[in-house]
Amino acid sequence: MAHVKIRVDSMKAFCNEVFKKFGFTEEESSIITDVLMLSDIYGIESHGVQRLVRYHKGIESGMIKVHAKPEIVKETPVSAVIDGHEGMGQLIGHFSMNLAIKKAKETGIGIVTVRESNHYGIAGYYAKMACDQGLIGMSATNSEAIVVPTFGKKAMLGTDPMAFSMPAEPYPFFFDAATSIVTRGKFEMYNKAEEPVPRMWGTDENGHPCTDAGRVLRNIKSKAGGGISPLGGVDEVYGSHKGYGNAMVVEILTGILSNGLTSNHNLINNHGGTCHFFAAIDPSIFGNPEMIKNHLSTFLDEIRESPKRDGKTKIYTHGEKEVLATADRMKNGIDVDIKTLEEMKDCADYVGVDYYKYFGYLGVKIFYNPDDHTQY
Amino acid sequence: MAHVKIRVDSMKAFCNEVFKKFGFTEEESSIITDVLMLSDIYGIESHGVQRLVRYHKGIESGMIKVHAKPEIVKETPVSAVIDGHEGMGQLIGHFSMNLAIKKAKETGIGIVTVRESNHYGIAGYYAKMACDQGLIGMSATNSEAIVVPTFGKKAMLGTDPMAFSMPAEPYPFFFDAATSIVTRGKFEMYNKAEEPVPRMWGTDENGHPCTDAGRVLRNIKSKAGGGISPLGGVDEVYGSHKGYGNAMVVEILTGILSNGLTSNHNLINNHGGTCHFFAAIDPSIFGNPEMIKNHLSTFLDEIRESPKRDGKTKIYTHGEKEVLATADRMKNGIDVDIKTLEEMKDCADYVGVDYYKYFGYLGVKIFYNPDDHTQY
Repeated sequence: MAHVKIRVDSMKAFCNEVFKKFGFTEEESSIITDVLMLSDIYGIESHGVQRLVRYHKGIESGMIKVHAKPEIVKETPVSAVIDGHEGMGQLIGHFSMNLAIKKAKETGIGIVTVRESNHYGIAGYYAKMACDQGLIGMSATNSEAIVVPTFGKKAMLGTDPMAFSMPAEPYPFFFDAATSIVTRGKFEMYNKAEEPVPRMWGTDENGHPCTDAGRVLRNIKSKAGGGISPLGGVDEVYGSHKGYGNAMVVEILTGILSNGLTSNHNLINNHGGTCHFFAAIDPSIFGNPEMIKNHLSTFLDEIRESPKRDGKTKIYTHGEKEVLATADRMKNGIDVDIKTLEEMKDCADYVGVDYYKYFGYLGVKIFYNPDDHTQY
Repeated sequence: MAHVKIRVDSMKAFCNEVFKKFGFTEEESSIITDVLMLSDIYGIESHGVQRLVRYHKGIESGMIKVHAKPEIVKETPVSAVIDGHEGMGQLIGHFSMNLAIKKAKETGIGIVTVRESNHYGIAGYYAKMACDQGLIGMSATNSEAIVVPTFGKKAMLGTDPMAFSMPAEPYPFFFDAATSIVTRGKFEMYNKAEEPVPRMWGTDENGHPCTDAGRVLRNIKSKAGGGISPLGGVDEVYGSHKGYGNAMVVEILTGILSNGLTSNHNLINNHGGTCHFFAAIDPSIFGNPEMIKNHLSTFLDEIRESPKRDGKTKIYTHGEKEVLATADRMKNGIDVDIKTLEEMKDCADYVGVDYYKYFGYLGVKIFYNPDDHTQY
């Protein structure tokens, strides 16, 4: 699919206006936009502005309640449980991580679990919020059940990502990964390219390994059976039970501890019910935070400097690809495909935002020229 | 290799006497024995009495200091840092998890990090300690560097297991897994059987996938390069970077936060330097603990009852295999191979324990009869 580059500032201004028109306040719109944009800036396009259509449809259908405010339903000096009242996931996430950070600054540790939320973007955004304040940040979320437990054939688990971030030099440790072998987005990419997916990635309606991305995606949609494999694939020989176990830990930290819905009950009958987990830890409870940061920085250096496999020139530490992507996106703009531009235009029309003001005729089918490399 | 069955009580009594003869107190010997035996009872033989030889050699060489006592070097109401002073890992672990449990009962959460310890057995033992008291338990440890980061060819990471346990009916959720694709024990099994290991499990001295278990093991020993792969294998396509990321999180929680050694500096010049992590969380900070337990039990039931893949009759939840193994081992005894029996005899001779009193001539080479199925 054709892609265009759009300047970060233009996209930010557009998203901000769209969310304000949806009924969010100035501050709320800016938070939602910031979460979406960080994905695109970090090169995780699947969770950035590509998702605008889902938020648009979620708000339109009433699944996402624009005016809901997160409510603290239980609280201790080290913890809280939040009821999101089916509001916008990014706002609930931002509120909850701020609460975890506040508690970590007071007691050393803050853990917040959330029920009745919606899709909150990348887990890493919230881990980064803590890291930006010198703390260790963690976040996890459940989601629609599209992952099949080892030996099963029905999707019972979400892709259940867990993020972990911590200050280091020259850039923080930032690890954000689904506990599944890949996310649905990868299947969509292979499907568009009409290429078979690697054998361990997913299973068909009978639970057999299936390399046909389209079939897996259709089965997920129609709930015909099968789905995406946990990290480790289909069988125990490669550790499928370990990825499945990691997903279970995320299900516990999110749906179980918040007394909310586990992934197998998420997103049924236009009810999101997504649950999240947030933790912040002040490293100073373990020692001098500068010393701890230096210790981690040294270890990350040792790994990057360690001998490379034949044919490889670089060992990445987690967070490095995001730094490289940020430099690129700030200079060259973010990557947006034509389908997303069309969805942005639809969304703008729906809420009454002047799309042309931001992007001219870019993405408007009849005028679109793939050789036009103008940056908007 | 020939195996025999030994009654749990006999093995317990033997180990207890051995550790007392090494100079541990009655109570200390009983803790060490309990950690070892839980591995065997849970069917994780690689971490049970098979390891006796390593503790024997560790104590003999002075790497493990028998009379060292764990010291709290930093403490807050929710956390502590322990210096193990190179003592026996099981004792340091037991002490540290008890401290985490005490803090969790007082404040809701207790996190304890440990430096300067030694091999502590299975991580799951400590998670179970918290679970046995109605809490959520977590534990992780680093270890000798035998795992290669994605795109590297030098082992920089430990197998870095993380365990998580939580009360549920009819049995607790109990998940204990290395963040590597498999542990060294699996390579040893394939090597003994002279069978090639699956392609993603390990790499040779140049970082290429290597199915020759013996070669990988020799390279690990001589530090010639290569080693075991992270969960997800050798390449990003199957999520190698995710297993590597999980290992990094364990390295941070253990070696970094305790201001101790990361795995790449462990076990050098007869200095263990192993670091651990322990956490206990009281579920009552999130709601009624009985309700939370029921919620988890229901979810585990839903997964076990969900449709099975063609050819499979059962979906396990984590902890179920350990329950089945326990029933078997308590009835039929634990599984011990002849090599381990010989090592037990050596150890008994070294400390002056009468091996024959416990096991008769079992495992004593010249008299050993593989058709003798007597239980000792």
